[in-house]
Amino acid sequence: MVDLAHAANVERGGVRYISGPPDYPLTFSVCSLVADEARFDRLVGSFRKCGFTAANTEFIAADNRYGNTYDGYEWTRRLYPECRGQYVIFCHDDIELLEDGYDKLVARLDALTLLDPAWVLAGNAGGRFRAAKMVDGKPTRPYAMTVTDKFGSFRMKETFVRAESLDENFFVMRHDRFVGTSFDLTGYHFYASDMCLMGEMLGGSAYVIDFHLRHHGQAAASRAFYKGRAQFREKYARYFPGRVLAPVTGPFELNAGQ
Amino acid sequence: MVDLAHAANVERGGVRYISGPPDYPLTFSVCSLVADEARFDRLVGSFRKCGFTAANTEFIAADNRYGNTYDGYEWTRRLYPECRGQYVIFCHDDIELLEDGYDKLVARLDALTLLDPAWVLAGNAGGRFRAAKMVDGKPTRPYAMTVTDKFGSFRMKETFVRAESLDENFFVMRHDRFVGTSFDLTGYHFYASDMCLMGEMLGGSAYVIDFHLRHHGQAAASRAFYKGRAQFREKYARYFPGRVLAPVTGPFELNAGQ
Repeated sequence: MVDLAHAANVERGGVRYISGPPDYPLTFSVCSLVADEARFDRLVGSFRKCGFTAANTEFIAADNRYGNTYDGYEWTRRLYPECRGQYVIFCHDDIELLEDGYDKLVARLDALTLLDPAWVLAGNAGGRFRAAKMVDGKPTRPYAMTVTDKFGSFRMKETFVRAESLDENFFVMRHDRFVGTSFDLTGYHFYASDMCLMGEMLGGSAYVIDFHLRHHGQAAASRAFYKGRAQFREKYARYFPGRVLAPVTGPFELNAGQ
Repeated sequence: MVDLAHAANVERGGVRYISGPPDYPLTFSVCSLVADEARFDRLVGSFRKCGFTAANTEFIAADNRYGNTYDGYEWTRRLYPECRGQYVIFCHDDIELLEDGYDKLVARLDALTLLDPAWVLAGNAGGRFRAAKMVDGKPTRPYAMTVTDKFGSFRMKETFVRAESLDENFFVMRHDRFVGTSFDLTGYHFYASDMCLMGEMLGGSAYVIDFHLRHHGQAAASRAFYKGRAQFREKYARYFPGRVLAPVTGPFELNAGQ
């Protein structure tokens, strides 16, 4: 690996001197946790139709076709060091691009960098930053999303909304501002929100951006979902006691002993 | 970059499928923030004499020879994606190995992995985990260290001591459990302790290990040191209010508005 070598870098006496920013050979690394090859082929085909070519994009699959080799928290850590793109996209294998493509995503991310140079993560659906609260004992749902899924077709009014949680169907991480996932959480849910909160503690920000796609997922809440949510709430209640979060899968308060 | 490709990985239709753990071509990436080339040449020479060969180790310098291109928080982030080693060593350019070398470090890290599979960082000097406290209004100094420096020659009695801060002169990070540094802290101090606390929040642990070396540094506390310390204390008081930390540069309590 390591072909990020900047033109200014030199090797001398077996030592590599690195100077300047990284020089990425690609714009995007599109990474997916792939359980179903046919779904992933549909994803790749839709990206290719929408301007993500071999010249600007690589596709990398965390291979779960023959069993649950990786969980949600593991696969992004496993794939990040393999990525050569300036931006790393993490997405479900069952998304499909429709009309928004390469040019629009690059334009959105360029504009986001101008708006907030500290951004680290950007997705198409999530909860607004520090906007959720308890009303009559129930958490509010300040969602922002641009997605077509089994619940309907949603477009947010704004182009950029600061977020504190992101849905895992599609999100982008800057290669130069990598954010890890928790080693002490497991499962297939909340790992993007975990990265949002870790990114926030690192001093970075997350956004929902107006970038539309179709998500074919069934979004059924399983026993594993509730177990993962309980883990997540217990962990983050330590650092943000009393904070109310609104992941698009449902809002909750961070309290110990819930 | 990206030559971590596991033997089991296959490319099909322009897509890379990744399975299994990473297969590192090297054991160590020795990374240093290099201001002085002669000091760094001494470092590299001492590593080579102690068993770190071209077959098992690469040396990478963040080039600060011609000015402060990178600060402490930036350079580890910049170099990590360039590293091909299973373990990434971050160290000052003014350390020198004496008798402890490759075999001992590998043995120490193997033993540490057996002792605590959740370890993420290991160094030769730091503060013991959750051991510092206020006594008569003053923070205690539960240090653990194995180093020879201008203050003397120190060897700890234990082989492994769980830590919550590490000195920047020398520390190791697992490639497969990377920990980022804060985007909102700057300067040349406390970035290893920042990684320890971020690693702790991620669910990993840090250790001081008995691995001896010489640190030629002057360790003079500058105005920048106190500025960096104030930033660090203010930030972490948010997440660990009232906690007492004992970096080997001096202990302090994490309190807001200090």
